[in-house]
Amino acid sequence: MDEFRSIAELFAPLALSEGEGLRDDAAFLPSGPGRELVITADAVVEGVHFLAGTAPELVARKLLRVNLSDLAAKAAEPFGYLLTVAWPESWGEAERAAFARGLAEDQAEFGIGLLGGDTVSTSGPMTAAVTALGYAPRAVRRSGAREGDLLVVSGAIGDGWLGLQAAKRELALGGDHLAALERRYALPEPRLELRALLRDHATAALDVSDGLIADVAHLARVSGVGIRLDLERTPLSPMALAWLAGSPNRGDALEALASGGDDYEIAFTVDPSGLAAVTEAGRPPRTPLTVIGAVEAGRDVRVVYQGRDRRPERTGWRHG
Amino acid sequence: MDEFRSIAELFAPLALSEGEGLRDDAAFLPSGPGRELVITADAVVEGVHFLAGTAPELVARKLLRVNLSDLAAKAAEPFGYLLTVAWPESWGEAERAAFARGLAEDQAEFGIGLLGGDTVSTSGPMTAAVTALGYAPRAVRRSGAREGDLLVVSGAIGDGWLGLQAAKRELALGGDHLAALERRYALPEPRLELRALLRDHATAALDVSDGLIADVAHLARVSGVGIRLDLERTPLSPMALAWLAGSPNRGDALEALASGGDDYEIAFTVDPSGLAAVTEAGRPPRTPLTVIGAVEAGRDVRVVYQGRDRRPERTGWRHG
Repeated sequence: MDEFRSIAELFAPLALSEGEGLRDDAAFLPSGPGRELVITADAVVEGVHFLAGTAPELVARKLLRVNLSDLAAKAAEPFGYLLTVAWPESWGEAERAAFARGLAEDQAEFGIGLLGGDTVSTSGPMTAAVTALGYAPRAVRRSGAREGDLLVVSGAIGDGWLGLQAAKRELALGGDHLAALERRYALPEPRLELRALLRDHATAALDVSDGLIADVAHLARVSGVGIRLDLERTPLSPMALAWLAGSPNRGDALEALASGGDDYEIAFTVDPSGLAAVTEAGRPPRTPLTVIGAVEAGRDVRVVYQGRDRRPERTGWRHG
Repeated sequence: MDEFRSIAELFAPLALSEGEGLRDDAAFLPSGPGRELVITADAVVEGVHFLAGTAPELVARKLLRVNLSDLAAKAAEPFGYLLTVAWPESWGEAERAAFARGLAEDQAEFGIGLLGGDTVSTSGPMTAAVTALGYAPRAVRRSGAREGDLLVVSGAIGDGWLGLQAAKRELALGGDHLAALERRYALPEPRLELRALLRDHATAALDVSDGLIADVAHLARVSGVGIRLDLERTPLSPMALAWLAGSPNRGDALEALASGGDDYEIAFTVDPSGLAAVTEAGRPPRTPLTVIGAVEAGRDVRVVYQGRDRRPERTGWRHG
């Protein structure tokens, strides 16, 4: 919950001095001419990152996907991963085998393989971590946003947050919408198809995991710029639009969708000269790409709704 | 506890098809001419790999060291690591800061830096995983042992196992011995000084973490050979010798020391032509190197004591 604070206060002084240090959530190693090895690590804990009782196949697949999403945001092509898993007492042979089946399924889906790791036992909740590796001709950092760039986001925002509520049976919506949202929460889609666009045009990028506003704030701080985020331009799915229609305050509801996290979309900045390429890459039936703001002077995110600055109340700001 | 079985049954089919697959506990990536990137991952859980109440500094340092020990066995020079940590509810700011101080201390000791990672919260025991990276001109695998090679082990065997008992106040020995054993358990010494010897002479190597007999069995199986292990030649520290002197059955006691695990010494095989180099590298005051057996026909470890084969009763064999 306090990832950013921990990293900033405790771990930043420990960063390897060359390169990006911990300003990025991935490491970049030169790996032959014109190629970087990109390495990222993410962990999940039962009851925190997935609901207790989630099918082990889905736990495995989401764990892989959140890591692949990080690589996608760096414009890296994943090829392998290391896995450490702490089996809880409640996971017997059947659950472990199901977990391995989930890994196998998404390995085939994404063309990756297991490189190594460690399995241990725990008296606590199921806990696992993946270190994912990919190669990129030009890996995109978080730190390259420049004043005048446009801010773009892929797909739709807020479904992860709504999906968690759907999974917890806390959401009143039509059954089809609920099922679609649950699926979005359980199985995010790493936007690997954006690799070429990001490599050729993005000045900075990250995947939206903490919440759009919080993650754009990370991008702004690490790049040393301000970023205006136009809340009304947030791309929404039909499910989120249905939920929004039933919400008493549209501004608050949009802010909640942009603060909820677990989207695993990609937010990136491009020079305006790249807009044509963005438009082309986001043409149907491809994943939509939406301009939602711009880079400006400053040091933080500035959330605008109906022409006025808002001061977001929740999430993300804890990270500051 | 069932690492080897899990890997063999569940995860081996998931291994990336090129290279060693999961026959090794590390991954090897070509990284420029004459250089491999070696990557390994190990996890620890409070109450399983360290006693509840262990000082966070020591938890951090042991976590780094068990990973560096893996790299040492591959003849790789460590340079960085990724860290995922699940903070338990009982670890407040003070414990987290102490954990970071422990990392900083051993980073300075071993010349490495933090490359990235993730911090999460858990309702269960403290859990953390490190993915450690190093470069090697020629990384040593587990799979290269050849009939006729000698089996060599560094340092002393059994202190990790005795040290755990000392830490749990289950051992009756002199106070100086108890303190020395506890320290050996809490802070293993990665044998990085053996890198050049291993690179130039080892046909296969691994670090002794599960127990000498179990780990030599891994080496034998992965290399497709038999390995004779002469129990009487097991190198022992003054503390282990004192414990042995008070044990009712010398053979059983030696077997226990060779089955206990947590030694983080390096077991390796060399062609007999490399014996002079081994002798030179193990000359005082350097870490001793002891020939404890030889590679022969077969497919497993063969434990010999007083000229007779023994059938070990405990540990390691669970992994089979």
